[in-house]
Amino acid sequence: MQSLSELTKDYSAARARRLQLDMSRGKPGADQLMLSRGLLDARWVEQPKSENGLDCRSYGGPEGIPEARRLFGEMLDVPTAQVIVCGNSSLTVMYDYLAQCMFLGTGTEERSAGWGFQPRRGKVKFLCPVPGYDRHFAILEQLGIEMIAIPMRAQGPDMALVEQYARDPDVKGLICVPKYSNPEGKTYSDETVRAFANLRPAARDFRVIWDNAYCVHDLDDQGDVLHNIFEEAKAVGTEDYFVEVTSFSKISFPGAGISCVAASPANIAAMQKRMAAQTISHDKLNQLRHARYFGDAAGVRAHMRRHAEILRPKFGVVLELFARDLTGLAQWTVPKGGYFISLDLPGGCAKRTAQLCKEAGVVLTSAGATFPGGIDPEDKNLRVAPTFPPLEELRAATELLTLCARIAIAEKT
Amino acid sequence: MQSLSELTKDYSAARARRLQLDMSRGKPGADQLMLSRGLLDARWVEQPKSENGLDCRSYGGPEGIPEARRLFGEMLDVPTAQVIVCGNSSLTVMYDYLAQCMFLGTGTEERSAGWGFQPRRGKVKFLCPVPGYDRHFAILEQLGIEMIAIPMRAQGPDMALVEQYARDPDVKGLICVPKYSNPEGKTYSDETVRAFANLRPAARDFRVIWDNAYCVHDLDDQGDVLHNIFEEAKAVGTEDYFVEVTSFSKISFPGAGISCVAASPANIAAMQKRMAAQTISHDKLNQLRHARYFGDAAGVRAHMRRHAEILRPKFGVVLELFARDLTGLAQWTVPKGGYFISLDLPGGCAKRTAQLCKEAGVVLTSAGATFPGGIDPEDKNLRVAPTFPPLEELRAATELLTLCARIAIAEKT
Repeated sequence: MQSLSELTKDYSAARARRLQLDMSRGKPGADQLMLSRGLLDARWVEQPKSENGLDCRSYGGPEGIPEARRLFGEMLDVPTAQVIVCGNSSLTVMYDYLAQCMFLGTGTEERSAGWGFQPRRGKVKFLCPVPGYDRHFAILEQLGIEMIAIPMRAQGPDMALVEQYARDPDVKGLICVPKYSNPEGKTYSDETVRAFANLRPAARDFRVIWDNAYCVHDLDDQGDVLHNIFEEAKAVGTEDYFVEVTSFSKISFPGAGISCVAASPANIAAMQKRMAAQTISHDKLNQLRHARYFGDAAGVRAHMRRHAEILRPKFGVVLELFARDLTGLAQWTVPKGGYFISLDLPGGCAKRTAQLCKEAGVVLTSAGATFPGGIDPEDKNLRVAPTFPPLEELRAATELLTLCARIAIAEKT
Repeated sequence: MQSLSELTKDYSAARARRLQLDMSRGKPGADQLMLSRGLLDARWVEQPKSENGLDCRSYGGPEGIPEARRLFGEMLDVPTAQVIVCGNSSLTVMYDYLAQCMFLGTGTEERSAGWGFQPRRGKVKFLCPVPGYDRHFAILEQLGIEMIAIPMRAQGPDMALVEQYARDPDVKGLICVPKYSNPEGKTYSDETVRAFANLRPAARDFRVIWDNAYCVHDLDDQGDVLHNIFEEAKAVGTEDYFVEVTSFSKISFPGAGISCVAASPANIAAMQKRMAAQTISHDKLNQLRHARYFGDAAGVRAHMRRHAEILRPKFGVVLELFARDLTGLAQWTVPKGGYFISLDLPGGCAKRTAQLCKEAGVVLTSAGATFPGGIDPEDKNLRVAPTFPPLEELRAATELLTLCARIAIAEKT
């Protein structure tokens, strides 16, 4: 390894190049956005009636049009009737669902007492596999829900710990990304999914938010396979505990896709009842566009292979440079899909690395953001988002990142 | 007037015609939807960057793109910076705002105690001008807010009564449609708007939801002019009490338009903070489409004149038949815009009339729907929505309505 003074010299040279690069957010690159250009063609909506005869330009159908429900149902392998198609953001779906649970309860129990609204003995708590998705934590924080960190293992969250915490009736649920987890890109094993299905939480209104954001986001043909939580849960009578969401944000357009929620018949009925007060319908023209353009799940998967062709080299360059520069110094994941690579540095090095990167013009996701409250207790995890920068910029940014990491590590030793 | 037996004979003949007509909801007709066909052309979004350089296909810009904010700002005559552009439904904007106030408070006060979340002495109450909009009442009902009916006068709600109730600190606000009110089509007078601005409610977190759904929805060139609530309120330091919404639902497409909220700088700041947890951005491609297609408020007004050409004869035929058949028997409004005509029958006749209509194949908005809880204490008000049926069907439906009304009246006397 180079000495600190050698590394610092390289860093000064790098700073002089005045980079302006962003690896902070999981955003598709410009070439990925072009893949869905045809979606905007007027021909998809020129005949504006959905299969059930609804004029998609007008009011009605808060549950979504049949063809869009079926498309999501195929993608998630759940019955069409258990899907509600929503607006452009699954984050909004999760926020609204959790807020409504806090306020009105889950809606499936006899009494409609909210998780948080009725004066309660204890505080509402949620389990959060870490490292995890910062925007999940931001929702829980805004709603005043206490977050309990659950360490991620190779197979998924530490389920023994989840089972133990779930014995507390104030623990009302868990929020996670079960496939290509954010940020580690891990997929929960079949055993982990079964352990979820077999949870027997003390709270009968316990809910697992199963954010399947990357359900079809494989980097190659040998992608991970996530076991179907609803199949497993239905077999043991626990399907009401699970609420799954996904969206087209990283299939078509992050800002202008469609999203959905999939859940048990009882949960879907409760959500539909509430949604009736919140909206007359979501944007059905955009549902029609998506359903007709993509056709079916096979059409979506074919489209995702074109994304993968663009993304593989990007993940490749980051992993190549990590292997070249950080072997023996740090650990990282090698995901088969999703949008992130998770980098674990020696303790106390993450913030310093991110700071050095920032001063040299490379923005990373804030160190700590992958933990509740933005505090990584060991200050070691960084989330790397390789998708947005063009390949050559990504190479420059990653080289700077590994340089900064080596400086931070050298400073510690 | 015909005798009951003559009327009943006519009714039997009408039933035999097996009508299937719907005057229940304020939906644009098929010809109106065709007016915005060009909006769906791909050329509006082919160059996907907004004025501030944001790629409208991707994430970001939860406050909306500048050109869409400006368009709404012009339409409502409020500064662009005081507008947030949202999704396809202003109903959702109102629901979310009220739910967040219940849960988290208004966000502008030092303490963030929600209207409803902290254990409170009294129940949260809201003032509701009646007759009013059933979907407003449905939101308040779901959130557990007690509704207090305020009678509408010629100039708007009875403001002396509003002032009196606003002395109760548990009264947290009022929800209304100030221009072409739903269902009466009345526009609040300048004096009424000034009385709103000069309210001094006991609750400092009092909010008036100013649902300006019909801001540009005049039936002819001599439309009503609603005085600008923010100008008046700013002058007397009460602008934080007002939250205005509107949408393109009845300008472009009911299911696929864009909506906005306009409010004081303090309220906008509070909403932006909350929105950051709820969404990364609303559908900016649809914002871009609307901003480029309509251009500016003048473009919107020109478009609305084409709607008016379609709607004028529809309102005309209903009013003509009311005058022919119900003069001296009932009272109705003659609105200069909006989507409804309000029919006041003698007490005890509204439900019976709606029931007779239904049995003969004509669906009206449920009698009572224009009052909180769906209960019209005098059972006299019916909301007539003349926009959706083609002209000849509308004539047939209205003839049946006046016949049923005359039967209900004759049965009472």
